[in-house]
Amino acid sequence: MSLVVVGSMAFDAIETPFGKSDKIIGGAGTFIAWCASNFTGVKQISVVGGDFPQSELDALSARGVALEGVQIKKDEKTFFWSGRYHMDMNTRDTLVTELNVLGDFKPVVPDSYQDCEFLMLGNLAPAVQSSVIKQLKNKPKLIVMDTMNFWMDIALDDLKHTLSLVDVLMVNDSEARQLSGDYSLVRAAQKISAMGPKFVIIKKGEHGALLFHENQIFSAPALPLEDVFDPTGAGDTFAGGFIAHLAKTKDISFNNMKTAIIVGSALASFAVEKFGTERLRSLTKEEISGRINEFVQLSTFDISLV
Amino acid sequence: MSLVVVGSMAFDAIETPFGKSDKIIGGAGTFIAWCASNFTGVKQISVVGGDFPQSELDALSARGVALEGVQIKKDEKTFFWSGRYHMDMNTRDTLVTELNVLGDFKPVVPDSYQDCEFLMLGNLAPAVQSSVIKQLKNKPKLIVMDTMNFWMDIALDDLKHTLSLVDVLMVNDSEARQLSGDYSLVRAAQKISAMGPKFVIIKKGEHGALLFHENQIFSAPALPLEDVFDPTGAGDTFAGGFIAHLAKTKDISFNNMKTAIIVGSALASFAVEKFGTERLRSLTKEEISGRINEFVQLSTFDISLV
Repeated sequence: MSLVVVGSMAFDAIETPFGKSDKIIGGAGTFIAWCASNFTGVKQISVVGGDFPQSELDALSARGVALEGVQIKKDEKTFFWSGRYHMDMNTRDTLVTELNVLGDFKPVVPDSYQDCEFLMLGNLAPAVQSSVIKQLKNKPKLIVMDTMNFWMDIALDDLKHTLSLVDVLMVNDSEARQLSGDYSLVRAAQKISAMGPKFVIIKKGEHGALLFHENQIFSAPALPLEDVFDPTGAGDTFAGGFIAHLAKTKDISFNNMKTAIIVGSALASFAVEKFGTERLRSLTKEEISGRINEFVQLSTFDISLV
Repeated sequence: MSLVVVGSMAFDAIETPFGKSDKIIGGAGTFIAWCASNFTGVKQISVVGGDFPQSELDALSARGVALEGVQIKKDEKTFFWSGRYHMDMNTRDTLVTELNVLGDFKPVVPDSYQDCEFLMLGNLAPAVQSSVIKQLKNKPKLIVMDTMNFWMDIALDDLKHTLSLVDVLMVNDSEARQLSGDYSLVRAAQKISAMGPKFVIIKKGEHGALLFHENQIFSAPALPLEDVFDPTGAGDTFAGGFIAHLAKTKDISFNNMKTAIIVGSALASFAVEKFGTERLRSLTKEEISGRINEFVQLSTFDISLV
């Protein structure tokens, strides 16, 4: 039984108030794979062009990321995104989007991925996400979907269809408000849940994340950081840590999802320390468990004295 | 030994997307007193005009709020504020500010207040706040100060002087950024702490609150609410719950301050349910402890499975 990840593998060029990167490795699928492979094996579904470095593919293989589902289109170019972050690091301008191989991406699920128990749908066109679900012969134990406002603007019907097929949706707060048409995040989560996903995760960047399920709510803090160097991929890394913890423990209770959110938050707090995937590549198990313990310190309190 | 509260007692008129209030009882000191008197006695310092209802003073007395330090200027009018909240309930426009008796408020600390052990300086001109500190013959065990951007704009030197005399500052996130000149809340807290207060609390509205002390950080969630009916006084109520828990337990450790922040957050979550102080007037001990338990449910997680 396995964790299957669908997501872009890309080049990014990033400007922040702290500096400017060259054309570096990015993409939701890449961040998810680098993060999740700290906890469990990963079976990757994606597409790259002939310009994507073999060394990157080799590095992922070496970490236990299966690449049979990654199409390599030798004569085409890899997806490229360039953006510039504002001072608040929560808002950004897209400078360049070159879809390239992603423009007509038709994912193919290899036979060796049919043991999929946990499916992570990274941010992609919702029709691409649902085509992966439909190729699976057995329904996975858990399907988690990430998406963004862009798809709400141009492919809302596709998005709603995919939503009806998944168990967990993760979006940020402004996306939750846009999708539901409700300003209150509590009511937004209720309305989104009625569209399909029984669990709704609302990411709030530096303010942490909320998990909603029926009448239960969990509020996870974000680690307060002196500097957020580059927020690119923080949400994808969060997703990777979240699903990898669930896949490793095979427990999809609300209680274990709370833990999974802390794991995702801890990993995301590393991702923002350097450009792109750089920080995720050098992580040790000790650093990860140390960071998770910081979340315990950060949020534990005692009401016995009240 | 006692808790002394300094703060405005006022009339407010409030417009929110949900409705419009008449001229109702408001003021930082009023909210703090209504909240804190759930936990401990309060000795109030304030000023009102002849138009302030005796029934309100009687109601506070009946809850154990001493009013010897409340000046009643029979021929003048009580401070009046009117504001309109935007849809996000975090931003508001001030429609009317009539300082009236607050314009030349010179607080006088009665002899019977000289046993002050905990001093809560509600949001007021910083020179007024420091004049109370200077009238106390013995240094209190803990001085907590609330303030706002308005004083940073027009009375920064006074504010910095008062800051140098207090133990805890509470401000919201944009105020912390303004006061420190630093966007990072971690560095903002460090810079503010260097101005005097060894503890810095940064309130983030619907995103909770952060407590900073030396190298320690505590992140408290806010209770996700379907509706925030009227945010007026939420910060004052938070302050009242915070200091009242400390005054009741007489423990000013970092650990107990974490609990105090949860108590303040729980009380603030009630305050926003109705206009003005209305919800605070009807609170029961059972409702308060039930709400505090909701904060435990909201934020508890288990990392033993990681």
